[in-house]
Amino acid sequence: MTTAQTTTEGTMPNGFDPANVEALEPTLRSLVERRQSVIAPSNRLFYSTPVDVERATGVHLYDAQGNEYLDAYNNVPAVGHCNPHVVEAISRQAATLNSNTRYLTTTLIDYSERLLATHDPAIDQLLYTCSGSEANDLAIRLARYETGGDAVIVTSHAYHGLTASIAEMSPTLGPNVPLGAKTVTIEAPDYANVDDAETVGAAMASRVSEAIAHLERHGMRLAALLVDTVFSSDGLITSPPGFLAPVVDVVHAAGGFFIADEVQAGFGRTGDAMWGYQRHGVTPDLVTMGKPMANGLPLGAVATQSRHALRFGRDIRYFNTAAGNTVCISAANALLDVFETDGILENVRDVGRRMLEGLTELTYRYACVTSARGAGLFVAVDLVDPDTQEPAPTLAASVVNGLRQRRVLVSNTGRYENVLKVRPPLVFSDEDAQYFLGRLDEVLAMAMS
Amino acid sequence: MTTAQTTTEGTMPNGFDPANVEALEPTLRSLVERRQSVIAPSNRLFYSTPVDVERATGVHLYDAQGNEYLDAYNNVPAVGHCNPHVVEAISRQAATLNSNTRYLTTTLIDYSERLLATHDPAIDQLLYTCSGSEANDLAIRLARYETGGDAVIVTSHAYHGLTASIAEMSPTLGPNVPLGAKTVTIEAPDYANVDDAETVGAAMASRVSEAIAHLERHGMRLAALLVDTVFSSDGLITSPPGFLAPVVDVVHAAGGFFIADEVQAGFGRTGDAMWGYQRHGVTPDLVTMGKPMANGLPLGAVATQSRHALRFGRDIRYFNTAAGNTVCISAANALLDVFETDGILENVRDVGRRMLEGLTELTYRYACVTSARGAGLFVAVDLVDPDTQEPAPTLAASVVNGLRQRRVLVSNTGRYENVLKVRPPLVFSDEDAQYFLGRLDEVLAMAMS
Repeated sequence: MTTAQTTTEGTMPNGFDPANVEALEPTLRSLVERRQSVIAPSNRLFYSTPVDVERATGVHLYDAQGNEYLDAYNNVPAVGHCNPHVVEAISRQAATLNSNTRYLTTTLIDYSERLLATHDPAIDQLLYTCSGSEANDLAIRLARYETGGDAVIVTSHAYHGLTASIAEMSPTLGPNVPLGAKTVTIEAPDYANVDDAETVGAAMASRVSEAIAHLERHGMRLAALLVDTVFSSDGLITSPPGFLAPVVDVVHAAGGFFIADEVQAGFGRTGDAMWGYQRHGVTPDLVTMGKPMANGLPLGAVATQSRHALRFGRDIRYFNTAAGNTVCISAANALLDVFETDGILENVRDVGRRMLEGLTELTYRYACVTSARGAGLFVAVDLVDPDTQEPAPTLAASVVNGLRQRRVLVSNTGRYENVLKVRPPLVFSDEDAQYFLGRLDEVLAMAMS
Repeated sequence: MTTAQTTTEGTMPNGFDPANVEALEPTLRSLVERRQSVIAPSNRLFYSTPVDVERATGVHLYDAQGNEYLDAYNNVPAVGHCNPHVVEAISRQAATLNSNTRYLTTTLIDYSERLLATHDPAIDQLLYTCSGSEANDLAIRLARYETGGDAVIVTSHAYHGLTASIAEMSPTLGPNVPLGAKTVTIEAPDYANVDDAETVGAAMASRVSEAIAHLERHGMRLAALLVDTVFSSDGLITSPPGFLAPVVDVVHAAGGFFIADEVQAGFGRTGDAMWGYQRHGVTPDLVTMGKPMANGLPLGAVATQSRHALRFGRDIRYFNTAAGNTVCISAANALLDVFETDGILENVRDVGRRMLEGLTELTYRYACVTSARGAGLFVAVDLVDPDTQEPAPTLAASVVNGLRQRRVLVSNTGRYENVLKVRPPLVFSDEDAQYFLGRLDEVLAMAMS
């Protein structure tokens, strides 16, 4: 592919280029300059015109001028920005107790039992962390210690986090973050040629087998296959459900662990189940969770089969000071309340289906829009050059920024940064979906005119 | 030392031994068993009889029976458990907006400017993390990228965190967590022979020079010296102030960074300054912060000189989803408010001095208590065998648990686990100090009878 480019050094999809600060209107420019002065440049802003936000509620953000933005992107406030039930739980708990896990609290125990009940019965113990990155980092420590292996297989455009160890297993960070000597990459399934689960699974299993043979030839042993169960940054590959089953068998036969990274896929994002791995009918050895777990407060976890945590538990202590603190746990518990009282999974299924239908319809109407796909409220389309069908990252960027000008927030992803990534809070309604699709239609019409 | 033992495999100072669960009274036992069933064993409880907590305020915790515990240990709720001003800030912000750092908020910018104003003027930019571990992990990534070096020097009983990368630089985790191939350890200053800053500094600088010669001989290059500026887990070495200055010079001459780990020492713990490095009159290249930063909500940061963040910033993006979210930042800002309105630093100095005087007095009265030391509200004594003067970890454990039976919470630390570690919330009063010293006196009298 000659016209497409892979992630360029140091940039990120949909990042604001600090060199363009002078083009911003004065108030915004002043705010961006103040930020640039105190925040190191690695931490980028979104959009060619950054969004200043002052308050938020449900699926809407508001800027200082009171303008309303429809949030079709943020997966962290899963039950909505400033969800009142979650806010009440945070406020109440913050005023009562914020303990760490070295003391006993029923809050921690009750929540842990409740969270584990949403998982495969074999998944029966937890360790809490402050972030999804820390969860993946700990899962890899556990997998290496328990299996005696060292090498880790990931997909070729995966993102799993930003600790030194996990950045080495996150190829999407680009060439300036070298992959570790014990990181082996395989291609994710090709969503453009999705077929039956058996065929896709066999092909991926075969690539994992080859990777295992390669690493053994180089004197390494498999510790784990680590996959985001919706393959978000590989471009969003949710179908056909079930394709991971034969892959997991290959990993187990080699003595490795299958680690389901549910930081993006988990907590009902796909609508048909709480966890992405459940769509594939597999039982992970370790599961990692993060992002929406406490609806925006920092909380992550590793869930494990207790048999996999015995040696590590005997030999190595793990105390993460603020992880699993009572306030974050209370927020997380309130999020599960809302899942029950507000029928979140059902909403995700229903609105997600309409979103996918709407995107599919756009693929019929625009030659630059192809391959509508996704599960629940994680949906995507590819944007391509209408003539060559090559990935069109520049078009994707202009669509993302065109939507931002219309105060609708999304972003782009994928190896060629040409995938429109739509991933709203799970309380997105039918009306929100229609509004989003209407604005997208406008922006596409303008881009193609 | 024949009678003393170093940290045993997998255990932690003052940890509850799960094998003893049957000895607990039925209600507590049932709670501990429920916890053991759902929390993986790496995450240990405190005390031979764990403490169940239900609410907390100021420097006091309360269990389900309403019993009051004096907290002389928890450094995270720095301005007191459930501080009303912090609780109000959390509640208000949680109901208004919880944004991430890819959007613009004045909350983040205002706080960043305020936090940087407490630092050396050369320290002028920030990157936020969810924990102190993530901050140290990122600081090492930065140091390696910016210096081109790879090796890291730490003290021989240091603790810097629990990511895979930082656990390799935390010798206190014990033999089951191997130090990295590029981790070099040096002895911390010997607090039993504290002398003038010049002598102590020259001795430590000489050890760092030797370590640098060693690593260069092995084909490595220095990336950083990483030190907790109060050397907490080395046994608490706060004096003589200034001894770090010649050490930093040696590090800079070798092209390495000096990273001040302020996760324990920072935010006024030592009373005479906001940051431990300021007591030594040195300017770090990178500073890491964590624990008390948001008074219990998860928040950490790396502060850097902007000249050290340029290359990394150009080449590598760093976005940590929940790090620096608006709610945690608002809590952190409220903590700085309380520092100003309630004269926290002054209280730390005054009460800390009385605590140290009280501990010193105990060293005159008990042959098993030696070497009272510390700065501000981080104070310690060694517990030794009165006959041999050897470290007495068993005595330390019985003092810690004796205090717990009297509902006063402390813990022990140090290479031989014989150091009584006293580190209360910074709002500890004179009366609290007298109460604490009285109970400690009782427990020591009983232990020696």
